[in-house]
Amino acid sequence: MNLEQALAKSRADFAGDGLARIRRFVRQPSISADGTGIREMAELLVREIEGLGGRARPIETAGHPVVYGEIDAGAATTLLVYGMYDVQPVEGEVGWLADPFSGDIIDYGDHGPCLVSRGIYNTKGPLAGFFNAVAAAQASGRLPVNLKFLVEGEEEMQSKHLKDVVRDHRELLAADYAYFPFYSEDPTGKPMVYLGVKGILFFELIARGGNRGGPVGRDIHGSNAVWFDNPAWSLVHAMSSMISRDEKHILIDGFYDEVVPPSAEDEGLLTELERTFDARTELETHDVVRFKYDLEGGDLLRKYLYQPTLNIDGLVSGHHGAGTKTVIPHEARAKLDIRMVPNMDPERTKRLVRDHLDRHGFGHVLMEVNDAYAWAKTPASNPAIGALLDGMRALGAAPEVWPHLAGSAPFYLFTKELGLPLAMGGLGHGGRPHSPNEYATVEGMQRLQDSVLHFLANLGGTQ
Amino acid sequence: MNLEQALAKSRADFAGDGLARIRRFVRQPSISADGTGIREMAELLVREIEGLGGRARPIETAGHPVVYGEIDAGAATTLLVYGMYDVQPVEGEVGWLADPFSGDIIDYGDHGPCLVSRGIYNTKGPLAGFFNAVAAAQASGRLPVNLKFLVEGEEEMQSKHLKDVVRDHRELLAADYAYFPFYSEDPTGKPMVYLGVKGILFFELIARGGNRGGPVGRDIHGSNAVWFDNPAWSLVHAMSSMISRDEKHILIDGFYDEVVPPSAEDEGLLTELERTFDARTELETHDVVRFKYDLEGGDLLRKYLYQPTLNIDGLVSGHHGAGTKTVIPHEARAKLDIRMVPNMDPERTKRLVRDHLDRHGFGHVLMEVNDAYAWAKTPASNPAIGALLDGMRALGAAPEVWPHLAGSAPFYLFTKELGLPLAMGGLGHGGRPHSPNEYATVEGMQRLQDSVLHFLANLGGTQ
Repeated sequence: MNLEQALAKSRADFAGDGLARIRRFVRQPSISADGTGIREMAELLVREIEGLGGRARPIETAGHPVVYGEIDAGAATTLLVYGMYDVQPVEGEVGWLADPFSGDIIDYGDHGPCLVSRGIYNTKGPLAGFFNAVAAAQASGRLPVNLKFLVEGEEEMQSKHLKDVVRDHRELLAADYAYFPFYSEDPTGKPMVYLGVKGILFFELIARGGNRGGPVGRDIHGSNAVWFDNPAWSLVHAMSSMISRDEKHILIDGFYDEVVPPSAEDEGLLTELERTFDARTELETHDVVRFKYDLEGGDLLRKYLYQPTLNIDGLVSGHHGAGTKTVIPHEARAKLDIRMVPNMDPERTKRLVRDHLDRHGFGHVLMEVNDAYAWAKTPASNPAIGALLDGMRALGAAPEVWPHLAGSAPFYLFTKELGLPLAMGGLGHGGRPHSPNEYATVEGMQRLQDSVLHFLANLGGTQ
Repeated sequence: MNLEQALAKSRADFAGDGLARIRRFVRQPSISADGTGIREMAELLVREIEGLGGRARPIETAGHPVVYGEIDAGAATTLLVYGMYDVQPVEGEVGWLADPFSGDIIDYGDHGPCLVSRGIYNTKGPLAGFFNAVAAAQASGRLPVNLKFLVEGEEEMQSKHLKDVVRDHRELLAADYAYFPFYSEDPTGKPMVYLGVKGILFFELIARGGNRGGPVGRDIHGSNAVWFDNPAWSLVHAMSSMISRDEKHILIDGFYDEVVPPSAEDEGLLTELERTFDARTELETHDVVRFKYDLEGGDLLRKYLYQPTLNIDGLVSGHHGAGTKTVIPHEARAKLDIRMVPNMDPERTKRLVRDHLDRHGFGHVLMEVNDAYAWAKTPASNPAIGALLDGMRALGAAPEVWPHLAGSAPFYLFTKELGLPLAMGGLGHGGRPHSPNEYATVEGMQRLQDSVLHFLANLGGTQ
């Protein structure tokens, strides 16, 4: 591949074939929640990969299929591209300025000309842009890397069956690096590059009446609280035993045992981040008055990135509507999530929570785990990260590199299960995922393709 | 009044004028929740009292009117009859065997012939029965007592404005005794006579994001729990600080200070009750496996009647529907009720809860009181109680006398505000309040009238 030619080709073709491909992707609805267009979108993806000279097929799961594909370039290096072809529903969303499946370009306020459609940002737009870059690369010589694709249709459903596919196809998915393309620039044009994600344990605690006491199967009159137990008290006591009142210390034995301090590499990144980190903007962005720590700058950043958390996402029990009604609820439920930092293990953490409940007299409180996956990190020193960052910098951008995101994604499937370094992101800007007027800027969609071409060239080495 | 003549007259007229009056009451809908028929029912009541030679008028409130009436018999004794003319809605109730406002009599399973209608049990049926008894008394001489009526239209709305009316009309409501008529017999024909009720403090605890920390006005992404407070944790910690884990001890300073042991009179009643009290039936009735106390018989009964409680009626916060969604909720709410036994004071108890929250670092947790009223008791030795019980016994019934109910009602307005002994109940059987096929037995409706006539005769003395 001649990089300069490929960049020129990508730009030249954008208004024609490039935009046409992006529109094919977003005009095909693919709503995983109710299955709308999912099968059609999977078939479209297979055709797109075949159209680039590759081979592809849907891998069936107990849910929506995962599309697997490969384009062999006879190169020394193989890149596994992770993507998602499903999107959030649009039902009930008010205020769309264009039909959400139109692929229309409008002048969208301060952002200028934007393609406004469901999935253009999250993440069929960048996936189509990656394909556009591949086409431009092929038109300018040979692809610098072999490509494999693993594109799931259940990302908006907690990637329910992706782990089955990964575990059943380890050899098929053998590669040197993994990559997840998306638009990483903030509105000012600064790309944010994250080297990983935290792990998550999302679970429910459920207290019910039963052998220990309390009403079974129905709420009963509240005056009976004088001689019967109330499951809601069990839940409240179980939860309060797990964290200090100032919410800074989790009181589960062994909870912090595996937590490691920032690596030397992370410390270097933190020193960089401290220069631009703006705590006040974080408060304003989240409509919060103060942090729970009386810390600033790097000390606060360290808490943000390296402290595990135990959070209440929701509570429900008994009569919670308007007016007065006194009952002993037969059931009380709490949804909680634990964010795990390196090197916490989900299975061990789950066991610690259960042990804590049992040891503190809450053996009757049920724990149901909805989701559990580990943190994932790729060292900044990995060639894939270098290839991504160098490409951005060559295009004049100054990426801000974060040790990891405070949020979670199942990237451990790549880093831990498959042992692959994972890079994510690219130039380009978009926003409003899961909201009306999800958008990407027209100029940004082209920059994404530019940065992908640089990334591929850097990965494959000069040819 | 000649009691024998009055009893005969009441029975003779029942199938004609008696049932006609009861049907007038139940055929007129009077649903306080949405106001349906409320005004018409109040006017009907005024006419009924005037029809018995009395004077009556609606007293306007900020809500539905209270009907006040009086029938002066030139007697030495005056009885204030408390009643309610409102009923629960029927909307959404499935399985009615008759139109709920028809006054139809059907053969209702084991209960035999019953009038099945909304309000026949709770409590327009017994109120109309009381009027029938008055008519029979008047036809058989002179009423043995003067009557005053205070009939509210908001009982199903926590008697919101009754206290205003009572406080504004103390002189008008002057009397010797108060009485609340209803059908007191269980299905086996045993009348349960309660000498009082517990008090209640029904309140919400609300934790919100704000100056102390946590998101304001909207839920934010759960990954931020690492550096922002979560109002749901505040609520959980505030609640758990208020009661022991075994739910037997309330940890609010001073909470038990005013609680008094059973009086000598109550001890006598308890000795009687122990003979028939059946703990196993209480468990079965409530679908509960065990009591919170390892006690039996009288010891358990003493807990039931003389322990104050702190109960969670409901909890709600954040995402509590299906699936995974991690948020920091901006608000968490709990509904709680405290049942107050003699001699606990609602205002003092409310202050103790607030003080507890403030002293334990939960000054930011709001406490909103929805309802607060004191316990109410009338001594068994009071002539009104004797008149009621003697009347029942004269009719062959063997009433079970309870020191008070574990539930609550605003009877303190009579006992404390007006200083009146209050008797409640009468013969007759009905059931299924707030449910489809609310009923009263035809034979029981007549027994109610019999017991009212005995009660009035006993109250007024032989004439």
